[in-house]
Formats: sequence, C-alpha cells, structure tokens
Amino acid sequence: MSTAPPLSPTARSTVRRGAKRARTDRAELYAVLDAGLVGHLGVVLGDAPVVLPTGYGRDGDTLYLHGSTGAATLRAAAAGAPVCFTVTHLDGIVYARSAFHHSVNYRCAVVHGAARLVTDPGERLHGFEVLTEHLAPGSWSATRQPDRRELAATALLALDLAEASVKVRTGPPGDDEADLATPVWAGVLPLRTVVGTPESDPLLPEGVPVPERVLSRQV
Amino acid sequence: MSTAPPLSPTARSTVRRGAKRARTDRAELYAVLDAGLVGHLGVVLGDAPVVLPTGYGRDGDTLYLHGSTGAATLRAAAAGAPVCFTVTHLDGIVYARSAFHHSVNYRCAVVHGAARLVTDPGERLHGFEVLTEHLAPGSWSATRQPDRRELAATALLALDLAEASVKVRTGPPGDDEADLATPVWAGVLPLRTVVGTPESDPLLPEGVPVPERVLSRQV
Repeated sequence: MSTAPPLSPTARSTVRRGAKRARTDRAELYAVLDAGLVGHLGVVLGDAPVVLPTGYGRDGDTLYLHGSTGAATLRAAAAGAPVCFTVTHLDGIVYARSAFHHSVNYRCAVVHGAARLVTDPGERLHGFEVLTEHLAPGSWSATRQPDRRELAATALLALDLAEASVKVRTGPPGDDEADLATPVWAGVLPLRTVVGTPESDPLLPEGVPVPERVLSRQV
Repeated sequence: MSTAPPLSPTARSTVRRGAKRARTDRAELYAVLDAGLVGHLGVVLGDAPVVLPTGYGRDGDTLYLHGSTGAATLRAAAAGAPVCFTVTHLDGIVYARSAFHHSVNYRCAVVHGAARLVTDPGERLHGFEVLTEHLAPGSWSATRQPDRRELAATALLALDLAEASVKVRTGPPGDDEADLATPVWAGVLPLRTVVGTPESDPLLPEGVPVPERVLSRQV
C-alpha cells in the first residue's frame, strides 16, 4: 500500500534533488513519533472513516493511545477493528517557480494495524504513565496518580509498530529544469513549533512556582 | 456521531470551567480551516482506514483537496467513497494537579462527506488557484501557471462543508475540586507555529530577492 502523502502534485513527479523518500529505519520512525504530541487516529465506523486527533505515547515498538470508554471510535478500535494512526510534522512551506511545484517539507509516520485493548492493571498503569510522560515529561511522579474512577472511565489501547512507515520531504523545490532561469524567488520558508510563557491556573494557591519540568520544556 | 477528540481521559469527564465545547458556527469552522496548512484525509481502502496528510484550500463551503492521480486514497475518494478530513491546531499543553487531567488545548475541524472529482477545466484551474493561494498567498499569479502535463497528473477533489463540526478546548486544567489545594503547579504551556528565515534555493539566479509575500508571511 502506498503511503505517499498526497500533499502536492509533486508527490507523483520525479523529485529533482532527492528530497523526498520513504524510510523504514526504526530510529527515524521513533524520532518522528517521539517528536509529536498528537496524532490522527482513523477508524472505520459503518462504512465511513472517522479521523480524530488523539494523544499517544511510545514504549519500544508499542504505541499507547487512550480515550474515553464512551467514544465510538475508541470502542471500535478496542474491539479489534483496523486502525491507521498518523503523526505529521510540518517543517516548511516550499515556494517554487511554478504553481504546481509548490509543496511542503514534512516528516510523517503512518502506522497500520489492529489495536489491542489493554486490560492488565499493571500494563494499564504503565501505559498511562507513558502517555502522561510523553505529553508532559516529569508530570507522572509530580502529580496525583489516577484513582479507580478515572481508570474505569478510560480505555487504553496498544498499537504495535510492526506495520509502520515514514515519509520525509526536505530541501528546496523540485522545479522543472526549464523553469530554473525564471527570475521568481524559490526556496523554503521554515516552520517550527515553539512554546510560550507558562500561564498559571488562576486557581493555583499563592507561592506555587512554575517547575523546571515546565520551564525547560521544548517541543 | 460524536466527534469528540479522544485527546485525553478528560474528554469524557465534566469540564469544570466550560473549557471545551463543540461549535457549529460557520465563522469558527472557516477560521479553523483557514488557519491550517495540512489536514488529515481518511479513506477506507479494503476494510481498513488510511489516514494521510493532505494539502487543501477553502472557497466558501467547498474544500478543495488535490493529489496524484496515482494515489490509491485519492482514487478511492475520487470514486465517491466516504471520506473524513480533519484539521487540528495544537494550542497548548495543559498541566494538571492530577496525571489524568493533563490535556491539550486545541482547535479541530472535522468534515465528513463524499468528495466530488472536479472535471470542469474552469473549476479545476480555480481549485488549483485556491490550493496554491492557501499554501502560499500571492504565489499563483507570481509563478508559472500549470501546463497540460501537470494538470493531467493531478486530481482535484471538492468536499462540501455541509457535514462539519468544530471542537475547541481552551483554558486551564479541569482538575477535581479535591485537588485544587495541592501545591502542584497547574496551568497551560502555550504552543504556536512560527516561521523562520526564508532559505533561498541554491539554484536561484543571483539577484532574485525574497518577495514581500514570503517575507511578510505568517502562519
């Protein structure tokens, strides 16, 4: 199955300068997954796809996903329906000399498979820790642990990374040779995600400082 | 159908401070779509979902998507299969006093429907202009227009926004009352996407300046 992201018309054409390629290297897959905070989970409900943003965390070759036990998508995935989980980073806008060679630089991981509903209490707690630490490193041990009611309301899914692929596009546009002399600017406008100043909860008791785990956070 | 993103266990629980809600306002739907560059297109292939990052542009209540005529997902969508197209913005990491109330602030638009393969040459050219201008404002008129070969290689899909919803989460964590006195920092670490310095294509002829449409670009 092709997982070429149909990001632009150039997805089909030959890329002049080796800018785009599918990669199967595990380290690169891990890097793309670990750098994201939210992926997009696709599940089939009836005969239609549903794609929703979903939090996750990775432990080795297992991706943990969680969600409300009341969500139809999670229930379908928990019942063993095939899923697709995609994590995309947008790294730049590619300006070309021709309209059609405009594109984006990106890194994208696509995972296919059937998720497993985690029921073992020990693995469930471990999975929730992985999820929490992925979203907010240092938070698991610094905050109140989940209680019985919270655990009951939340489904934990495990998705194996056996069937996963990575696509990366980097570098300048892939304009046609014939367009290279055109006096039109071409290049890349890089994009990145940055963190702002932490906003304390107005209900915070006085004197509770912003912890280092938040102050030093990069994404 | 619920489109509640299963972003965190709090998706099910009562949110203390009206932070999360589904919205149906058209202006808000447009705003979320217009602020994004890439969405995630879900299509069913066989009996399994496939979710891929996909460029888009909006014209009124029509979302234009494009891709290679060789991509299986695009072919399925062009044939009228139901699709789901989701655009998500991550606005912040929500740190709570309890592990389970950690969450994210986000804006998410979910569009369901069957796409229409655009075949009219005039609408096709218009759709490609919408797509190009969405990705790179000002680029359509500044760069070479698509030729016959490029047009032939690219499918243009139109997706009506009739069945679309928006979910937004903002504000501080929704911790339990019993946890509020805990001396653990809680609040939001805002996230935003910023543009870097334009990187000119090394093959650019000397003396071609970075145009204002790129220099002034915000995302």
